[in-house]
Amino acid sequence: MAHIALGVDETLFPGITGPMIYRPETAKPLNDLAEVLLRGPHTMSRGERELIAAYVSGLNECRFCCGSHSATAAAQLEQGMCLVDQVRADLDNAPVSPKLRALLRIAGAVQVSGRNVTPALINDARRAGSTDLEIHDAVLIAAAFCMYNRYVDGLGTLAPSNPQAYAYSAKRIVETGYRA
Amino acid sequence: MAHIALGVDETLFPGITGPMIYRPETAKPLNDLAEVLLRGPHTMSRGERELIAAYVSGLNECRFCCGSHSATAAAQLEQGMCLVDQVRADLDNAPVSPKLRALLRIAGAVQVSGRNVTPALINDARRAGSTDLEIHDAVLIAAAFCMYNRYVDGLGTLAPSNPQAYAYSAKRIVETGYRA
Repeated sequence: MAHIALGVDETLFPGITGPMIYRPETAKPLNDLAEVLLRGPHTMSRGERELIAAYVSGLNECRFCCGSHSATAAAQLEQGMCLVDQVRADLDNAPVSPKLRALLRIAGAVQVSGRNVTPALINDARRAGSTDLEIHDAVLIAAAFCMYNRYVDGLGTLAPSNPQAYAYSAKRIVETGYRA
Repeated sequence: MAHIALGVDETLFPGITGPMIYRPETAKPLNDLAEVLLRGPHTMSRGERELIAAYVSGLNECRFCCGSHSATAAAQLEQGMCLVDQVRADLDNAPVSPKLRALLRIAGAVQVSGRNVTPALINDARRAGSTDLEIHDAVLIAAAFCMYNRYVDGLGTLAPSNPQAYAYSAKRIVETGYRA
Protein backbone atom coordinates (compact mmCIF):
# COMPACT_ATOMS: atom_id res chain seq x y z
CA MET A 1 0.00 0.00 0.00
CA ALA A 2 1.20 3.49 -0.83
CA HIS A 3 2.69 5.71 1.92
CA ILE A 4 -0.26 8.14 1.65
CA ALA A 5 -4.00 7.60 1.21
CA LEU A 6 -4.47 8.04 -2.52
CA GLY A 7 -8.23 7.51 -2.43
CA VAL A 8 -8.17 4.81 -5.10
CA ASP A 9 -8.09 1.02 -5.30
CA GLU A 10 -4.38 0.52 -6.05
CA THR A 11 -4.97 -2.80 -7.75
CA LEU A 12 -7.00 -0.88 -10.34
CA PHE A 13 -4.79 2.23 -10.34
CA PRO A 14 -1.23 0.99 -9.70
CA GLY A 15 2.06 2.88 -9.98
CA ILE A 16 1.86 6.49 -11.11
CA THR A 17 -1.87 6.36 -11.88
CA GLY A 18 -2.96 6.59 -8.23
CA PRO A 19 -0.90 9.72 -7.41
CA MET A 20 -2.09 11.27 -10.67
CA ILE A 21 -5.72 10.86 -9.66
CA TYR A 22 -4.86 12.10 -6.14
CA ARG A 23 -3.21 15.32 -7.42
CA PRO A 24 -4.58 16.33 -10.85
CA GLU A 25 -2.85 19.74 -10.67
CA THR A 26 0.56 18.07 -10.93
CA ALA A 27 -0.67 15.19 -13.12
CA LYS A 28 -1.40 17.60 -15.97
CA PRO A 29 2.17 18.90 -16.55
CA LEU A 30 3.57 15.41 -15.84
CA ASN A 31 1.38 13.93 -18.57
CA ASP A 32 1.96 16.85 -20.92
CA LEU A 33 5.72 16.34 -20.60
CA ALA A 34 5.47 12.59 -21.29
CA GLU A 35 3.25 13.24 -24.31
CA VAL A 36 5.68 15.73 -25.90
CA LEU A 37 8.80 13.71 -25.14
CA LEU A 38 7.56 10.22 -25.96
CA ARG A 39 4.86 10.79 -28.58
CA GLY A 40 5.30 14.27 -30.12
CA PRO A 41 6.55 14.73 -33.72
CA HIS A 42 10.17 13.57 -33.84
CA THR A 43 13.03 12.06 -35.83
CA MET A 44 13.20 9.27 -33.21
CA SER A 45 10.33 6.80 -33.34
CA ARG A 46 7.93 6.46 -30.43
CA GLY A 47 9.31 2.98 -29.80
CA GLU A 48 12.89 4.30 -29.60
CA ARG A 49 11.92 7.01 -27.14
CA GLU A 50 9.98 4.57 -24.96
CA LEU A 51 13.05 2.32 -25.06
CA ILE A 52 15.13 5.15 -23.52
CA ALA A 53 12.43 5.56 -20.84
CA ALA A 54 12.39 1.80 -20.12
CA TYR A 55 16.21 1.62 -20.04
CA VAL A 56 16.52 4.46 -17.49
CA SER A 57 13.63 3.09 -15.40
CA GLY A 58 15.44 -0.24 -15.29
CA LEU A 59 18.66 1.43 -14.13
CA ASN A 60 16.62 3.16 -11.40
CA GLU A 61 15.11 -0.24 -10.50
CA CYS A 62 11.61 1.20 -10.70
CA ARG A 63 9.50 -1.89 -11.31
CA PHE A 64 6.31 -0.09 -12.29
CA CYS A 65 7.85 2.38 -14.75
CA CYS A 66 10.21 -0.21 -16.21
CA GLY A 67 7.33 -2.66 -16.70
CA SER A 68 5.07 -0.03 -18.16
CA HIS A 69 7.53 1.63 -20.55
CA SER A 70 9.11 -1.69 -21.57
CA ALA A 71 5.65 -2.86 -22.64
CA THR A 72 4.93 0.46 -24.40
CA ALA A 73 8.30 0.31 -26.20
CA ALA A 74 7.76 -3.32 -27.18
CA ALA A 75 4.31 -2.53 -28.58
CA GLN A 76 5.86 0.07 -30.90
CA LEU A 77 9.11 -1.65 -31.91
CA GLU A 78 9.26 -4.18 -34.73
CA GLN A 79 11.48 -6.47 -32.61
CA GLY A 80 9.18 -6.18 -29.58
CA MET A 81 10.09 -7.12 -26.02
CA CYS A 82 13.07 -9.18 -27.23
CA LEU A 83 14.90 -5.95 -28.16
CA VAL A 84 13.90 -4.20 -24.91
CA ASP A 85 15.30 -7.13 -22.92
CA GLN A 86 18.54 -7.16 -24.95
CA VAL A 87 19.10 -3.41 -24.48
CA ARG A 88 18.44 -3.65 -20.76
CA ALA A 89 20.67 -6.71 -20.33
CA ASP A 90 23.63 -5.74 -22.54
CA LEU A 91 23.51 -2.37 -24.27
CA ASP A 92 26.97 -2.79 -25.87
CA ASN A 93 25.86 -5.84 -27.86
CA ALA A 94 22.15 -5.17 -28.37
CA PRO A 95 21.05 -4.99 -32.04
CA VAL A 96 20.30 -1.25 -32.16
CA SER A 97 21.72 1.39 -34.50
CA PRO A 98 25.00 3.10 -33.47
CA LYS A 99 23.00 6.32 -33.07
CA LEU A 100 20.43 4.84 -30.69
CA ARG A 101 23.18 3.08 -28.74
CA ALA A 102 25.05 6.39 -28.31
CA LEU A 103 21.87 8.15 -27.15
CA LEU A 104 21.13 5.32 -24.70
CA ARG A 105 24.67 5.72 -23.33
CA ILE A 106 24.01 9.43 -22.76
CA ALA A 107 20.74 8.49 -21.02
CA GLY A 108 22.62 6.02 -18.82
CA ALA A 109 25.08 8.74 -17.82
CA VAL A 110 22.24 11.14 -16.98
CA GLN A 111 20.68 8.47 -14.76
CA VAL A 112 23.73 8.66 -12.49
CA SER A 113 24.20 12.44 -12.71
CA GLY A 114 23.88 15.16 -15.31
CA ARG A 115 27.56 15.86 -14.71
CA ASN A 116 28.41 12.38 -16.03
CA VAL A 117 27.55 13.43 -19.59
CA THR A 118 31.01 13.94 -21.10
CA PRO A 119 32.04 15.66 -24.35
CA ALA A 120 33.18 12.18 -25.49
CA LEU A 121 29.64 10.77 -25.11
CA ILE A 122 28.24 13.76 -27.01
CA ASN A 123 30.85 13.40 -29.77
CA ASP A 124 30.08 9.69 -30.13
CA ALA A 125 26.39 10.53 -30.55
CA ARG A 126 27.20 13.19 -33.15
CA ARG A 127 29.52 10.90 -35.09
CA ALA A 128 26.71 8.32 -35.16
CA GLY A 129 24.44 10.94 -36.75
CA SER A 130 22.51 12.38 -33.76
CA THR A 131 21.11 15.88 -34.10
CA ASP A 132 21.15 18.48 -31.33
CA LEU A 133 17.43 17.90 -30.78
CA GLU A 134 17.93 14.14 -30.43
CA ILE A 135 20.69 14.72 -27.86
CA HIS A 136 18.52 17.27 -26.03
CA ASP A 137 15.57 14.91 -25.89
CA ALA A 138 17.65 11.88 -24.86
CA VAL A 139 18.98 13.94 -21.93
CA LEU A 140 15.52 15.20 -20.98
CA ILE A 141 13.80 11.80 -21.33
CA ALA A 142 16.45 10.29 -19.04
CA ALA A 143 16.16 13.19 -16.59
CA ALA A 144 12.36 13.02 -16.63
CA PHE A 145 12.38 9.31 -15.80
CA CYS A 146 14.69 10.02 -12.88
CA MET A 147 11.72 12.08 -11.70
CA TYR A 148 8.85 9.70 -12.58
CA ASN A 149 10.72 6.73 -11.08
CA ARG A 150 11.36 8.58 -7.79
CA TYR A 151 7.77 9.82 -7.69
CA VAL A 152 6.35 6.31 -8.10
CA ASP A 153 8.72 4.61 -5.65
CA GLY A 154 8.99 7.54 -3.22
CA LEU A 155 5.27 7.20 -2.57
CA GLY A 156 5.57 3.42 -2.25
CA THR A 157 2.93 2.70 -4.88
CA LEU A 158 1.94 -0.76 -6.05
CA ALA A 159 3.81 -2.38 -8.96
CA PRO A 160 1.76 -5.22 -10.49
CA SER A 161 3.66 -8.50 -10.82
CA ASN A 162 1.52 -9.69 -13.74
CA PRO A 163 3.05 -8.67 -17.14
CA GLN A 164 -0.49 -8.60 -18.58
CA ALA A 165 -1.23 -5.49 -16.53
CA TYR A 166 1.60 -3.62 -18.26
CA ALA A 167 0.65 -4.92 -21.70
CA TYR A 168 -2.90 -3.72 -21.17
CA SER A 169 -1.81 -0.25 -20.08
CA ALA A 170 0.68 -0.09 -22.99
CA LYS A 171 -2.14 -0.79 -25.46
CA ARG A 172 -4.11 2.10 -24.00
CA ILE A 173 -1.11 4.47 -24.15
CA VAL A 174 -0.31 3.51 -27.76
CA GLU A 175 -3.92 4.13 -28.75
CA THR A 176 -4.76 7.28 -26.80
CA GLY A 177 -1.54 8.74 -25.36
CA TYR A 178 -0.59 10.10 -21.96
CA ARG A 179 -3.13 12.89 -21.75
CA ALA A 180 -6.21 10.64 -22.05
CA MET B 1 29.51 26.20 -23.45
CA ALA B 2 26.55 23.82 -23.57
CA HIS B 3 26.91 20.44 -25.30
CA ILE B 4 24.42 21.49 -28.01
CA ALA B 5 23.89 24.76 -29.89
CA LEU B 6 21.07 26.42 -27.93
CA GLY B 7 20.91 29.47 -30.19
CA VAL B 8 21.20 31.91 -27.30
CA ASP B 9 23.96 33.91 -25.59
CA GLU B 10 24.50 31.69 -22.52
CA THR B 11 25.80 34.57 -20.43
CA LEU B 12 22.35 36.14 -20.82
CA PHE B 13 20.41 32.85 -20.66
CA PRO B 14 22.35 30.56 -18.30
CA GLY B 15 21.32 27.23 -16.79
CA ILE B 16 17.86 25.98 -17.67
CA THR B 17 16.82 29.16 -19.47
CA GLY B 18 18.80 28.35 -22.65
CA PRO B 19 17.31 24.84 -23.13
CA MET B 20 13.87 26.26 -22.40
CA ILE B 21 14.20 28.80 -25.22
CA TYR B 22 15.65 26.06 -27.46
CA ARG B 23 12.72 23.68 -26.90
CA PRO B 24 9.52 25.56 -25.94
CA GLU B 25 7.40 22.42 -26.36
CA THR B 26 9.07 20.84 -23.32
CA ALA B 27 9.62 24.15 -21.51
CA LYS B 28 5.87 24.60 -21.10
CA PRO B 29 5.13 21.50 -18.98
CA LEU B 30 8.44 21.96 -17.11
CA ASN B 31 7.45 25.50 -16.12
CA ASP B 32 3.85 24.50 -15.41
CA LEU B 33 5.09 21.82 -13.01
CA ALA B 34 7.42 24.25 -11.18
CA GLU B 35 4.62 26.80 -10.91
CA VAL B 36 2.15 24.33 -9.34
CA LEU B 37 4.69 22.73 -7.00
CA LEU B 38 6.58 25.81 -5.84
CA ARG B 39 4.01 28.60 -6.09
CA GLY B 40 0.49 27.11 -6.22
CA PRO B 41 -1.94 27.38 -3.27
CA HIS B 42 -0.50 25.33 -0.40
CA THR B 43 -0.16 24.78 3.34
CA MET B 44 3.63 25.04 2.88
CA SER B 45 4.90 28.54 2.14
CA ARG B 46 6.61 29.32 -1.16
CA GLY B 47 9.85 29.85 0.74
CA GLU B 48 9.61 26.39 2.35
CA ARG B 49 8.97 24.71 -0.98
CA GLU B 50 11.86 26.55 -2.65
CA LEU B 51 14.01 25.44 0.29
CA ILE B 52 13.25 21.80 -0.54
CA ALA B 53 14.19 22.51 -4.18
CA ALA B 54 17.45 24.20 -3.13
CA TYR B 55 18.30 21.39 -0.69
CA VAL B 56 17.85 18.65 -3.31
CA SER B 57 19.71 20.66 -5.96
CA GLY B 58 22.60 21.00 -3.51
CA LEU B 59 22.63 17.25 -2.90
CA ASN B 60 22.73 16.75 -6.68
CA GLU B 61 25.60 19.28 -6.85
CA CYS B 62 23.77 21.25 -9.54
CA ARG B 63 25.36 24.69 -9.23
CA PHE B 64 22.82 26.55 -11.36
CA CYS B 65 19.66 25.12 -9.76
CA CYS B 66 21.08 25.29 -6.25
CA GLY B 67 22.12 28.91 -6.75
CA SER B 68 18.82 29.84 -8.35
CA HIS B 69 16.48 28.11 -5.88
CA SER B 70 18.58 29.06 -2.84
CA ALA B 71 18.17 32.70 -3.88
CA THR B 72 14.45 32.23 -4.55
CA ALA B 73 13.99 30.52 -1.17
CA ALA B 74 15.99 33.22 0.61
CA ALA B 75 13.91 35.95 -1.00
CA GLN B 76 10.74 34.38 0.44
CA LEU B 77 11.95 33.26 3.89
CA GLU B 78 12.08 35.61 6.85
CA GLN B 79 15.53 34.29 7.82
CA GLY B 80 16.84 34.61 4.25
CA MET B 81 19.99 32.97 2.89
CA CYS B 82 21.26 32.29 6.41
CA LEU B 83 18.56 29.63 6.86
CA VAL B 84 19.16 28.14 3.41
CA ASP B 85 22.87 27.80 4.19
CA GLN B 86 22.15 26.22 7.59
CA VAL B 87 19.74 23.66 6.12
CA ARG B 88 22.18 22.74 3.37
CA ALA B 89 25.12 22.49 5.77
CA ASP B 90 23.51 20.68 8.71
CA LEU B 91 19.86 19.70 8.39
CA ASP B 92 19.76 18.00 11.81
CA ASN B 93 20.57 21.22 13.64
CA ALA B 94 19.10 23.86 11.33
CA PRO B 95 16.44 26.10 12.95
CA VAL B 96 13.43 24.76 11.03
CA SER B 97 10.20 23.28 12.37
CA PRO B 98 10.15 19.51 13.08
CA LYS B 99 7.64 19.19 10.24
CA LEU B 100 9.81 20.90 7.65
CA ARG B 101 12.86 18.95 8.85
CA ALA B 102 10.97 15.66 8.42
CA LEU B 103 9.85 16.66 4.91
CA LEU B 104 13.40 17.68 3.99
CA ARG B 105 14.59 14.26 5.19
CA ILE B 106 12.06 12.59 2.90
CA ALA B 107 13.31 14.82 0.05
CA GLY B 108 16.89 13.79 0.83
CA ALA B 109 15.91 10.12 0.63
CA VAL B 110 14.15 10.66 -2.71
CA GLN B 111 17.31 12.33 -4.07
CA VAL B 112 19.14 9.01 -3.66
CA SER B 113 16.26 6.76 -4.76
CA GLY B 114 12.51 6.66 -4.38
CA ARG B 115 13.02 3.29 -2.71
CA ASN B 116 14.90 4.99 0.11
CA VAL B 117 11.70 6.54 1.46
CA THR B 118 10.95 4.30 4.44
CA PRO B 119 7.77 3.97 6.53
CA ALA B 120 9.85 5.39 9.43
CA LEU B 121 10.54 8.62 7.49
CA ILE B 122 6.85 8.89 6.61
CA ASN B 123 5.80 8.25 10.23
CA ASP B 124 8.22 10.91 11.48
CA ALA B 125 6.69 13.42 9.07
CA ARG B 126 3.18 12.49 10.17
CA ARG B 127 4.04 12.73 13.86
CA ALA B 128 5.44 16.21 13.17
CA GLY B 129 2.08 17.17 11.69
CA SER B 130 2.56 16.67 7.94
CA THR B 131 -0.51 16.03 5.81
CA ASP B 132 -0.68 13.52 2.97
CA LEU B 133 -0.55 16.39 0.47
CA GLU B 134 2.58 17.81 2.09
CA ILE B 135 4.27 14.41 1.95
CA HIS B 136 3.14 13.95 -1.67
CA ASP B 137 4.50 17.33 -2.69
CA ALA B 138 7.78 16.94 -0.80
CA VAL B 139 8.33 13.68 -2.69
CA LEU B 140 7.40 15.22 -6.04
CA ILE B 141 9.43 18.43 -5.53
CA ALA B 142 12.48 16.29 -4.71
CA ALA B 143 11.82 13.99 -7.68
CA ALA B 144 11.27 16.96 -10.01
CA PHE B 145 14.58 18.53 -9.02
CA CYS B 146 16.31 15.23 -9.73
CA MET B 147 15.01 15.91 -13.26
CA TYR B 148 15.71 19.66 -13.54
CA ASN B 149 19.23 19.20 -12.11
CA ARG B 150 20.06 16.42 -14.60
CA TYR B 151 18.57 18.41 -17.48
CA VAL B 152 20.69 21.48 -16.68
CA ASP B 153 23.95 19.59 -16.07
CA GLY B 154 23.36 16.85 -18.66
CA LEU B 155 23.38 19.56 -21.35
CA GLY B 156 26.47 21.17 -19.83
CA THR B 157 24.87 24.60 -19.50
CA LEU B 158 26.56 27.61 -17.94
CA ALA B 159 26.22 28.26 -14.18
CA PRO B 160 27.01 31.90 -13.33
CA SER B 161 29.59 32.31 -10.56
CA ASN B 162 28.25 35.72 -9.54
CA PRO B 163 25.59 35.43 -6.75
CA GLN B 164 24.00 38.63 -8.10
CA ALA B 165 22.85 36.73 -11.19
CA TYR B 166 20.82 34.34 -9.02
CA ALA B 167 19.45 37.14 -6.84
CA TYR B 168 18.28 38.95 -9.95
CA SER B 169 16.55 35.88 -11.39
CA ALA B 170 15.02 35.12 -7.97
CA LYS B 171 13.47 38.60 -7.88
CA ARG B 172 11.90 37.97 -11.28
CA ILE B 173 10.55 34.57 -10.21
CA VAL B 174 9.10 35.95 -6.95
CA GLU B 175 7.36 38.73 -8.87
CA THR B 176 6.12 36.93 -11.97
CA GLY B 177 6.49 33.17 -11.44
CA TYR B 178 7.81 30.38 -13.61
CA ARG B 179 5.40 30.74 -16.50
CA ALA B 180 6.37 34.33 -17.36
